[in-house]
Amino acid sequence: MRLYCALVHYPVRARDGSTLATAVTNLDVHDIARSAHVYGLRGYFVVTPITAQHQIVERILGHWSEGEGGRRIPERSAALACVRPVESVAAALQRIRDDEGETPYLIATAARPFAGKEISSYAAIAQRIRRNDRSALLLFGTGHGLADELLREADALLEPIRGNADYNHLSVRAAAAITFERLVGEGDAGEPARGT
Amino acid sequence: MRLYCALVHYPVRARDGSTLATAVTNLDVHDIARSAHVYGLRGYFVVTPITAQHQIVERILGHWSEGEGGRRIPERSAALACVRPVESVAAALQRIRDDEGETPYLIATAARPFAGKEISSYAAIAQRIRRNDRSALLLFGTGHGLADELLREADALLEPIRGNADYNHLSVRAAAAITFERLVGEGDAGEPARGT
Repeated sequence: MRLYCALVHYPVRARDGSTLATAVTNLDVHDIARSAHVYGLRGYFVVTPITAQHQIVERILGHWSEGEGGRRIPERSAALACVRPVESVAAALQRIRDDEGETPYLIATAARPFAGKEISSYAAIAQRIRRNDRSALLLFGTGHGLADELLREADALLEPIRGNADYNHLSVRAAAAITFERLVGEGDAGEPARGT
Repeated sequence: MRLYCALVHYPVRARDGSTLATAVTNLDVHDIARSAHVYGLRGYFVVTPITAQHQIVERILGHWSEGEGGRRIPERSAALACVRPVESVAAALQRIRDDEGETPYLIATAARPFAGKEISSYAAIAQRIRRNDRSALLLFGTGHGLADELLREADALLEPIRGNADYNHLSVRAAAAITFERLVGEGDAGEPARGT
């Protein structure tokens, strides 16, 4: 499994459908890094073109790699070691190309359908990831979701997460955790191999 | 399905194993309410004996039920409508007894094994919830997890979440989302009924 994820802060949609840049938050960096690490992802890109925001990410990482945080909660450093701030999705793709020697399969996630793009099921994408013939990058959007240009550029658009209710306004932190579980998790209630 | 959850701020463990009370955070209230609502839970209890912390929760809820927040993002109000601050797990059990006319099955979650308590699989607990012959309350701990007295009191202790790595330091927000997905989610990669 050679799976990466990226949290996109630009370009993403505003509530009115226009494109904007959102701010990096400390908790998005931590929560998604911890989930990515639990599910064995190879890297977590924090995507923003704003240089000052990269400094915020670097400060968080420094606190946990060399600073007080790592001494206090060493297991957190292990999770944050997979975080890499980059200026764009193109830069994330280039970093993966450098590491893996190939362009990864680009998977967009969205809570809404997108005209002209076929929706891929979790089962289909999970099979592709397990086949492991090509690395893959999962994109998550902040704000009101990934901008249309990213949905268009992606090789696949993953179906929206629905639970049991007619409501899919999950936080991006919860959506990322559930997506990892569905795509690469080993545990599910329908799998008797887990035992009692 | 008559499933409830509770985020416990007291009694929980400190890093050194002693018992402490943690602070309510705005994001825990929001994220877990959104996940609970997506998976059709009947209620989300925020457990703390500290009165000032109840006021914080009430202020958040007021902002979204009657205040500016609800006008700006109406779908958030729907999720937060399931949140109820209570002083203890006993009080949460009583609220469910009042609503359901029975004492719910109490399920503790923990990232660690607990001496003398058998571990229940996701499959076993999922079956019980689907059978729907008794309501159930899922307990999540803040800090370093639920205090021993709650693990002892619970009817069942759910197995820890493991992804693909030998690391299970998920945030409680991610752990709650993954637990809902495993216990009551309809989507999983191994279920061909989802189609392509």
